[in-house]
Amino acid sequence: MQIYKKAILPKGFKANGVACGIKKSAKLDLALLYSQGPAKASCSFTTNKILAAPILVSQRHLKTNSSFRAIIANSGNANCFTGERGLKDAQETAHVLAKALGTRKEDALLASTGIIGKPLAVEKIKTAIPQLVQGLSRQGISKAKQAIMTTDTFPKELTVKFRCENQLLTICGIAKGSGMIAPNMACLKHGQEATMLSFILTDANLTQRAQDMALRMCVESSFNCISVDGCMSTNDTVILLANGASGSNLIDKGRYFNLFVKVLGKLCLELAKMIIKDGEGATKFIRIKVEEAKDQRQARVIALSIANSNLFKTAMYGENPNLGRIIASIGACGIDVSEKDLKVSLGPLNKEEIDIKVAVNRGRAACVVYTSDLTPEYVRINAEYN
Amino acid sequence: MQIYKKAILPKGFKANGVACGIKKSAKLDLALLYSQGPAKASCSFTTNKILAAPILVSQRHLKTNSSFRAIIANSGNANCFTGERGLKDAQETAHVLAKALGTRKEDALLASTGIIGKPLAVEKIKTAIPQLVQGLSRQGISKAKQAIMTTDTFPKELTVKFRCENQLLTICGIAKGSGMIAPNMACLKHGQEATMLSFILTDANLTQRAQDMALRMCVESSFNCISVDGCMSTNDTVILLANGASGSNLIDKGRYFNLFVKVLGKLCLELAKMIIKDGEGATKFIRIKVEEAKDQRQARVIALSIANSNLFKTAMYGENPNLGRIIASIGACGIDVSEKDLKVSLGPLNKEEIDIKVAVNRGRAACVVYTSDLTPEYVRINAEYN
Repeated sequence: MQIYKKAILPKGFKANGVACGIKKSAKLDLALLYSQGPAKASCSFTTNKILAAPILVSQRHLKTNSSFRAIIANSGNANCFTGERGLKDAQETAHVLAKALGTRKEDALLASTGIIGKPLAVEKIKTAIPQLVQGLSRQGISKAKQAIMTTDTFPKELTVKFRCENQLLTICGIAKGSGMIAPNMACLKHGQEATMLSFILTDANLTQRAQDMALRMCVESSFNCISVDGCMSTNDTVILLANGASGSNLIDKGRYFNLFVKVLGKLCLELAKMIIKDGEGATKFIRIKVEEAKDQRQARVIALSIANSNLFKTAMYGENPNLGRIIASIGACGIDVSEKDLKVSLGPLNKEEIDIKVAVNRGRAACVVYTSDLTPEYVRINAEYN
Repeated sequence: MQIYKKAILPKGFKANGVACGIKKSAKLDLALLYSQGPAKASCSFTTNKILAAPILVSQRHLKTNSSFRAIIANSGNANCFTGERGLKDAQETAHVLAKALGTRKEDALLASTGIIGKPLAVEKIKTAIPQLVQGLSRQGISKAKQAIMTTDTFPKELTVKFRCENQLLTICGIAKGSGMIAPNMACLKHGQEATMLSFILTDANLTQRAQDMALRMCVESSFNCISVDGCMSTNDTVILLANGASGSNLIDKGRYFNLFVKVLGKLCLELAKMIIKDGEGATKFIRIKVEEAKDQRQARVIALSIANSNLFKTAMYGENPNLGRIIASIGACGIDVSEKDLKVSLGPLNKEEIDIKVAVNRGRAACVVYTSDLTPEYVRINAEYN
């Protein structure tokens, strides 16, 4: 397995990113990922009850369609809580894109990130699409990864190449996210339910069932195990597109499936950790491991309760070894823990990376959650953002 | 009904506060409230699964005893996550106090607030108790209210005098709390399950059943409807002591009960609001009203989800009218809301007091929750506190 700390498109994919004018800064704000042949899609969307229009439209496409060609994503506006107009804007984006690509409109999946509750400047997107499509290239991924950024200070990208049944497969992922990060995503049918965005492209060839299951398993232990601020977005989306362009045999189950999951899991976890390292205003990268839980869900609930405690997060910022705040947050999460069974240990705090270990004496399951500290800079960024 | 913005002890009560040395600052840190005759107690404690030793000891006293004489409370140390030693320290405090007062040890209820997970300096408390008892007086409440403060910048106190069946009754309450404020208290039998502390004294005469029900109802719509930082403490405690010293008739149900609940409810709500006004680092007092909910619990869950969103709280600090963050936090709380049914309105943000109104079109219930903004000062206070 070879790991590259940059995005290298797998076979059969092209990409591009342009500045269509949604962002006032004139930075890149519209990304396109394109598969030259039909690709299977697996998706994971936020479980927030208010869903952004691009998610609603993507879910419709996933219900009626089984092969896809493109992901189009804008930053600067979430197109959420925008009512019928928002839906229409997302549909029109898909429509105009299909015309430019010469595909059907259901062949596109959509994503947006940015401010919630403001109408999308869809005319700017529509105007930019021809240029976006014309510029598609193998190198365009470097623009695409930037075009999905909002408050991110660096792009998140990773590529893994590995041998599977003597064939070379590539998985490449890009992601964005810095604030409003507490994903809890679930998966529908082969769209399933995940503002972090991550788009993962592979030239592997999987059955739909295997691809869906692989993504679900990997999201659960990566993107669903991070939190910057405990605020679950209306727009969280992970999309895995697999176009089979490697010419590999079909992966369904058994050891090749396990290998694919292992590689995809690593890629998702590394992207998720990059989001935490870029957490708004963060000065610390914190790893919370909860052990001896009844099951993984219980371990995750306890770990996230610590991760989302403002008192814990400010103590980490202050390098203040306040065990009591960890104890209080464990006791507050509703799970039946007891004082005498609890073991909590805290690594050195004067480092950029901090390790917290908790054991609860309830069973044998464990979960690791990643979070950042709460800083005056986080407050500043979010007091001003609009 | 006459309202006094200070603590005036009802008939038959005395109080005192001393500096026993737990706080390094040499400020007052040990409070005693004393009833000259036997008083009925109703209590509400935190639902955190990790309970401080003073709560465990109080709960034992409430199980075996039905009349009480004293509340002893220290600040500077929570006596929580202190194991067997913490329990023994709390028991010894009760024992030494009983000797000094000439009562049984089960006659006392205990409370602590301060750092979690450090042994209590019980010897300092034991040494100070004789002086604490000797100094009991009608004016001593002004010392008691200060002795329970931690990061509070002002004491919380209120007295209401009202006529009930032609007799003059008094209810007096003191409270503390500034951070780690997200009470969710419940009541056991006549002790029941709430680091805010509030001690409420009255010379009214109630049946145990009526007194317990009155406190439960009033806590639910006051202390349980505030949040500074979403962090539920291990030590939250509300105690209502009623000694009947007014000589009034026994209140059980009907209109005198209703009147008592109305007055007690007002007192609890005003004390709860003072805690929010003194929220750590707060610059805004925010009132969130959720209407058209299926039931009050649903309204409260939605309102608290908004109140506890860091993105909402930083927007309020920045006077940034970001409706989207309210929308996202409503959708994230797990309750089935829909975009088309949601109405959200935001009062002017350039004021100290801000009003948020949300209607969800699910029913006729409503709830008001009070919260504060998240500021760089909150981060500073809690990065340094230990």
